[in-house]
Amino acid sequence: MENNIADTASLAGQHCTACRKGTPPAAPEEIASLLARLPDWQVVEEDGIARLERVFVFSNFAQALSFTIRVGKLAEQAGHHPAILTEWGRVRVSWWTHIIGGLHRNDFIMAARTDRALAE
Amino acid sequence: MENNIADTASLAGQHCTACRKGTPPAAPEEIASLLARLPDWQVVEEDGIARLERVFVFSNFAQALSFTIRVGKLAEQAGHHPAILTEWGRVRVSWWTHIIGGLHRNDFIMAARTDRALAE
Repeated sequence: MENNIADTASLAGQHCTACRKGTPPAAPEEIASLLARLPDWQVVEEDGIARLERVFVFSNFAQALSFTIRVGKLAEQAGHHPAILTEWGRVRVSWWTHIIGGLHRNDFIMAARTDRALAE
Repeated sequence: MENNIADTASLAGQHCTACRKGTPPAAPEEIASLLARLPDWQVVEEDGIARLERVFVFSNFAQALSFTIRVGKLAEQAGHHPAILTEWGRVRVSWWTHIIGGLHRNDFIMAARTDRALAE
């Protein structure tokens, strides 16, 4: 568990690189290796696009909304934006790279930062 | 159009009534009549549960997040909570009454208040 925490922190501290149309999505081996460092996240496909998703559970709506705001702020800081579904006691965060229509290393970095925002 | 605005305002000003398990969902005729007063909303079914949904479009992520926060605040004030999907330039708000597993007049009142929050 401690290894996981250290690993997530090191991933969260990495820089997002600029993506252009034509930048290749992460290769399956890279996805598998990055996913191993984010045990609470899973890759799900929606409308044919792979997304990195995690559901966070809270005790009420106010806590869920407060987390949504925190994730929104870190998204704005990075210039990379997720889909955030806010409900009573529950927030689902989905990261993917719109311009490449799939997953990039950046999405895993943002997922690690989302985990860090939960801990803060 | 003016009629619609006045009508939405009058719906938004109504009080939500307490719902209990066993409170019947809105009848189809009531749903049709309330929906006529909310031209930008539609009833969609998800997991067998009818929801009242509208997608709001914005120019960027910050505006979308700001609207999410406003809708969250009015939900907290009413003690009735929607699902809010926040994305870059887009917020989808879904209202339904969890305890009755469907739509109640309250959901239409909250939808009207959501429209009002957009105008504010």
